[in-house]
Amino acid sequence: MSLLHLPHHDGSPLHVSHEAPTLGQTVTVRVRTTVQDPVEEIWLRTTYDAEPVFHPTTATAAGDVVWWEAQLPVHNPVTHYRFLLVRPAPDGEGATEGEQEWLTGSGIVNHDVPDATDFRVAAFPPAPDWGRDGVVYQVFPDRFARSAAADARESPDWALPAEWDDEVVFEGSDPRTPMQLFGGDLDGITEHLDHVADVGADVVYTTPVFPGESNHRYNATTFTQVDPLLGGDEAYARLSTAVHERGWRILGDLTTNHTGDTHEWFLAAADDPEDPHRSFYYFDEDGTYACWMGHGTLPKINHANLDVRHAMVEGPHSVVGRWLRPPYDVDGWRIDVANMTGRLGDIDVAHEVARAVRATAAELRDDPWVIGEHNHDATGDVDGDGWHGTMNYSGFSWPVWSWLRDPASPARAFGRPLPVPRRDGGAVVDTFRSWQGTLGWRATSSSWNILGSHDSARIRTVVGGDCAVHRVAAGLQFTMPGVPMIFAGDEIGLEGVNGEDARRTMPWHRRGEWDTRTLATYADLAALRRKHPALRRGGLRWAHVEPDTIAYVREHPDESVLVVARRAAGGGFTLPLGAGRHVFGSEPGGSDLAAADGTSTGSGIEVPATDGPRFDVWVLDEE
Amino acid sequence: MSLLHLPHHDGSPLHVSHEAPTLGQTVTVRVRTTVQDPVEEIWLRTTYDAEPVFHPTTATAAGDVVWWEAQLPVHNPVTHYRFLLVRPAPDGEGATEGEQEWLTGSGIVNHDVPDATDFRVAAFPPAPDWGRDGVVYQVFPDRFARSAAADARESPDWALPAEWDDEVVFEGSDPRTPMQLFGGDLDGITEHLDHVADVGADVVYTTPVFPGESNHRYNATTFTQVDPLLGGDEAYARLSTAVHERGWRILGDLTTNHTGDTHEWFLAAADDPEDPHRSFYYFDEDGTYACWMGHGTLPKINHANLDVRHAMVEGPHSVVGRWLRPPYDVDGWRIDVANMTGRLGDIDVAHEVARAVRATAAELRDDPWVIGEHNHDATGDVDGDGWHGTMNYSGFSWPVWSWLRDPASPARAFGRPLPVPRRDGGAVVDTFRSWQGTLGWRATSSSWNILGSHDSARIRTVVGGDCAVHRVAAGLQFTMPGVPMIFAGDEIGLEGVNGEDARRTMPWHRRGEWDTRTLATYADLAALRRKHPALRRGGLRWAHVEPDTIAYVREHPDESVLVVARRAAGGGFTLPLGAGRHVFGSEPGGSDLAAADGTSTGSGIEVPATDGPRFDVWVLDEE
Repeated sequence: MSLLHLPHHDGSPLHVSHEAPTLGQTVTVRVRTTVQDPVEEIWLRTTYDAEPVFHPTTATAAGDVVWWEAQLPVHNPVTHYRFLLVRPAPDGEGATEGEQEWLTGSGIVNHDVPDATDFRVAAFPPAPDWGRDGVVYQVFPDRFARSAAADARESPDWALPAEWDDEVVFEGSDPRTPMQLFGGDLDGITEHLDHVADVGADVVYTTPVFPGESNHRYNATTFTQVDPLLGGDEAYARLSTAVHERGWRILGDLTTNHTGDTHEWFLAAADDPEDPHRSFYYFDEDGTYACWMGHGTLPKINHANLDVRHAMVEGPHSVVGRWLRPPYDVDGWRIDVANMTGRLGDIDVAHEVARAVRATAAELRDDPWVIGEHNHDATGDVDGDGWHGTMNYSGFSWPVWSWLRDPASPARAFGRPLPVPRRDGGAVVDTFRSWQGTLGWRATSSSWNILGSHDSARIRTVVGGDCAVHRVAAGLQFTMPGVPMIFAGDEIGLEGVNGEDARRTMPWHRRGEWDTRTLATYADLAALRRKHPALRRGGLRWAHVEPDTIAYVREHPDESVLVVARRAAGGGFTLPLGAGRHVFGSEPGGSDLAAADGTSTGSGIEVPATDGPRFDVWVLDEE
Repeated sequence: MSLLHLPHHDGSPLHVSHEAPTLGQTVTVRVRTTVQDPVEEIWLRTTYDAEPVFHPTTATAAGDVVWWEAQLPVHNPVTHYRFLLVRPAPDGEGATEGEQEWLTGSGIVNHDVPDATDFRVAAFPPAPDWGRDGVVYQVFPDRFARSAAADARESPDWALPAEWDDEVVFEGSDPRTPMQLFGGDLDGITEHLDHVADVGADVVYTTPVFPGESNHRYNATTFTQVDPLLGGDEAYARLSTAVHERGWRILGDLTTNHTGDTHEWFLAAADDPEDPHRSFYYFDEDGTYACWMGHGTLPKINHANLDVRHAMVEGPHSVVGRWLRPPYDVDGWRIDVANMTGRLGDIDVAHEVARAVRATAAELRDDPWVIGEHNHDATGDVDGDGWHGTMNYSGFSWPVWSWLRDPASPARAFGRPLPVPRRDGGAVVDTFRSWQGTLGWRATSSSWNILGSHDSARIRTVVGGDCAVHRVAAGLQFTMPGVPMIFAGDEIGLEGVNGEDARRTMPWHRRGEWDTRTLATYADLAALRRKHPALRRGGLRWAHVEPDTIAYVREHPDESVLVVARRAAGGGFTLPLGAGRHVFGSEPGGSDLAAADGTSTGSGIEVPATDGPRFDVWVLDEE
């Protein structure tokens, strides 16, 4: 039996009537089953103030498919639910009852389970359309591009000035690593927005632009201005305006967990125990203070203190608020170290901070987007009124890496003492399912699909430099639920064995080194995603999983799409999906399979054998 | 390969050096592996303010076993951890790395997973020893025993007086069900404590004794006195004193979620919108009010209001506090509807209420025990400073029922629109593992192992009246992690198809109807549990699982025990456990297998074939 015959539900429009209901509203939820894998009876189970409650469903058959529908009362702000399935009783003596299974956010289980993988609907506005439909391009300002003005700027005392073609120092914990200043600036970004357009992105996300005594600027010295080394407030305003003139959006990057030890708040606090900023941090009586992972240069902010919360995240005059207004005019925030923000030992006000950031954004802009960095498990912080989504390393990056990694790659893992393991399709799909189940559909589809970032190795290095495997990785990034976020340089095949090494300069003047085939891949994928709502908002049903093949269907009321990713050579197979039209294949620039009548027979999609990695997409005919 | 060769960790003393460390302390955690299922490398992974952090382990071999040890910093009040295992690289060309697996609270997984099943240590005092080492006997006062004084009492207006031998009315939602008053009272319980001793119990838990216009008294009219129909405060003091004189303990039962609509608070509130008690409930402007599951007679308490919290749960003068002091002198509470308490729509102060109940108890008594009723998933409410444990229906009752249920039994499920499904050993053990993983070891082992209660069908009815299967069920109840809680009457084979029917009177004067063999089973099991610390505090390793067989080892520094439960006839098998001594078998009163040298060979325990359900325990020789 095909995976496509299994009972299915997800949070997409085919299955849930309102993705952002109000409290007290009723939502229609639907389960799809097939005659090939029959189900006798289905119950909707929800929790009502933590008490399990069951509601009946009604079934409607349409050909081989049966749709089961139930009414879900949205009683709690995050309302949990799942389905109890009863299978037909087996034939034979004495068998009077069928098996009972649960359909959960992580799939079907044949025994009772806790609520961690329940489906859920949230009575809060979702992430904005522009975010969920967008393609994010991440820029690390010091390394992206220098404007002419950059030459005139004097290098500060802390910096080690570098030439654009110098190599990045990244081995060990070399003290030079954060000091190497290449001099990229904001006007440099503004001048290269055509390149961002070539990639197909429409959301520009820059890592921090506040002054800080490092090239990464995550150790801010102030939140009141843009670093003059980047061109200052005026340059930011020019970038923001240019981005908006294209109809695009721009996101800022703010560390809420800590400041630099050269921050004006911290200097005042350290100098004078009576200074009101003292309470912004965690000072002990002896003058020691809490800091990020033991780094004394990064003193931790005490969000249990309402004054600092007011200064930083609450209301239009907070740091969060000021930047959402002109001249900066950012459309939202990526919050750095969101996972640790507000958490220290027995203190945990993390959710209050997330809620405040989001409320401040909603107060100042119609459709802001707030993404919290959480490199592991953001469950609970993302499915309600906290972050709209997260940088989905755990639920996207690591499983993709583990499927596509070249075992000989020098790429190093991030946050793990061992290389990311090489795993087969089955384990990789199980990983996707685990994370989709716990994060929930809306948070997953509003989170960032990342192949790498300024904090990790580059995907190109992970896949051992193989352009064809890179194409498969990018294909997954643009077609799995979630928003693609591209770290600038990935699209031309830049390499990097870890986060520091990944921060290489963009070789604008060495275009001969660019992998233009990969650039075309990104552009094609971005166009494909923009054209097909199913790739942005459709559901996700697994279609076929082998060690070297992962195939899935993205389904939407407008149309549905089949995606087939293959990491290595393998045989052909047929999927019970009616007919379809091949729209993306192994070469940039369009389909390279035979015409639709060659690859779909009406009784199924024939996925051909392949002699190596490839990535294909079919638009399915309406059944 | 035997299950016993798999890598293992749990929260028991063999694996964790302190089960209740203080914040900032370091705990030694240990993983057991074997040469039969080799592991190359193990890392301890914890989260530090939600950031994953890895610590190394050191390995020590001892025969076939390898112990891996690491230091776990207790940085957060509930500190999560799990282990990353690296397997040896397979032989053969090109294979350079072994697989990576996670050892979690739910077992080994071959892909990355969220933190829901992490192991955890809590920097809070554990449940008291008397609770964790005890055997709880649940009494529903109206049905347990009448003292001579009962005859003199007049029946109240609301009641339908019943004779002790009358049948319980339980079909449908017959209005007579809560009105039938059989007249059991507290002196009746006091007079029958020898019977409780015969069962082997040493903690008496009575359902509510407050006055209430029903036989179950969960709809209290006041919290200031004991129902005169039960003998009043004096009778309660006599019971409490008698219990304590035996060195036993007594637990009260308090509904914190709602009162009756005849409660003095509610009457005052309903009469006068200006009355201060109005804020104790959720009144709308039109005089309607929130209530439990739509039952207008059970108005819901508004714990977001600090006045009612003070009156009910906070401090020595609250309801919770007063009863912990003489003359009532209860040793702790079972909190009714704990799951819903403090939760309503977008309000959730459930954890604050749980914490307040526990803090009040700790303020007034040295070693109180607080169990929250949660019929489903109490995760998060039980692993920290909330409830010590829960009534573990989901993690114990339902999996046991589903393994042992007679498909023809008329027993009805509780909280489920379908019969509990009949499942095989594998699915049942997976259920146990799911719940143990999410609740955590300490909460699981401090929760109640229930075969039935006043809210459910009787186990005897679930197993179709089969005394031998009942013995297997009781065997699991006394030997799985958790505290046995026996609903009075189970021990003599009373039946009941649902909660109401289960509330049958104890047939003191019809001893001929008692199943004395089952009574002896309970007494033997209680004695066995009392004698062997491994059954109370030992770890849990699964030893052997087949559809009809579930076997496990409970391991403790003092000694270890093998438990083999079989629901039906089956063949023999050998477990790689060295030698052992058979201490419990198919007949009450002692071991019925051949002497130790007949069932253990020194190279393993030989579990013999069986021609029907049976339950066996061996004490293992030190290896």
